[in-house]
Amino acid sequence: MAYRKTPAELRRLDAAREHLIACATAVVAEVGWSQASVTAVADSAGIAAGSVYQHFPSKSALAVEVFRRAAGHEVEVLDEVLHGPGDPVARLASGVGVFARRALENRGLAYALLAAPAEPAVGAERLDFRRRYRALFAEVVREGTAAGQLPPQHAEITAAALTGAVGEVLAYPLGAPDGTAPDEIVAELTATVLRCAGAADPTTA
Amino acid sequence: MAYRKTPAELRRLDAAREHLIACATAVVAEVGWSQASVTAVADSAGIAAGSVYQHFPSKSALAVEVFRRAAGHEVEVLDEVLHGPGDPVARLASGVGVFARRALENRGLAYALLAAPAEPAVGAERLDFRRRYRALFAEVVREGTAAGQLPPQHAEITAAALTGAVGEVLAYPLGAPDGTAPDEIVAELTATVLRCAGAADPTTA
Repeated sequence: MAYRKTPAELRRLDAAREHLIACATAVVAEVGWSQASVTAVADSAGIAAGSVYQHFPSKSALAVEVFRRAAGHEVEVLDEVLHGPGDPVARLASGVGVFARRALENRGLAYALLAAPAEPAVGAERLDFRRRYRALFAEVVREGTAAGQLPPQHAEITAAALTGAVGEVLAYPLGAPDGTAPDEIVAELTATVLRCAGAADPTTA
Repeated sequence: MAYRKTPAELRRLDAAREHLIACATAVVAEVGWSQASVTAVADSAGIAAGSVYQHFPSKSALAVEVFRRAAGHEVEVLDEVLHGPGDPVARLASGVGVFARRALENRGLAYALLAAPAEPAVGAERLDFRRRYRALFAEVVREGTAAGQLPPQHAEITAAALTGAVGEVLAYPLGAPDGTAPDEIVAELTATVLRCAGAADPTTA
């Protein structure tokens, strides 16, 4: 049975895998991790359930890939804004604003990434990504302190606090909508984050 | 088979169940949710694995009970401090300080309660408890604003931010120890929380 796949076969397999990941991500965003069965994902991708296992050894492996792709994209966007133009406090405000807006525009996916009950393998990924967020926030807090914009502080602790604050606030309107308008959530969350980091005047950012 | 249990039998069953929960809690604190197998818990309680199912229909049901007991106790302690003597900002500072100290004294359990990858049923409980923390924090933030100690703010968003901040900071030294002394973590976290709520001078609390 050990024959070598042709380049065309490999390309087809790769395209089918990408299609499957995209469909699985949409299913997870719509119904959450626990309801995103292999059957539901296969239906959405227009393939037989058994075919899913041609690409992923288990439902858990597929879930981890969905998480990594989606969460990886969000962390890259934040990374880019935090390393963009502007002073450290302005970049922190923009980064949180962009992250929040994106989460509020795709609440189902954001909830799945941030907080929704998930299998342990996804939970482990989530913790790993939170470490990446903390590292990004710690860097901008340190820059802010060095620039005299933020008071001296334990940057790692502030960064962990910011990561937790952002995640919890964005999980909250998602998990239990209370009717607060997205613009107000973004503005309040940004102000809260800036206060948390000790920015002198949050309203100027 | 439907015979009625005597009061003495019921008391014995109840005591055995409590012993099992206590042992399971200790096992979870030591090895985490995923490693806390029914066999490990039964061994720790000195009973046969099958006897666990006399008390709980599934491993998941036992895990949920362990979570509810332990998390319920922490939320009660926080509730008591937040409703204790002192002005709102002082109570917020004390509440976070007490919560943090307790978490740092039993890091294994705190990590299990706050962040450790767990089965979905435990994840759902965790979200439910976070809602309780948010409600407690929102109340004290509203009191602080009413008393003129805190600036006007969206108390629900600040409360979500505080819940996320406290959880993430306490999960951080637990999940990845960086050698920061507990007293420093408590002091920095408390200062961060007070800044986040907009308290005028965190150092006076």
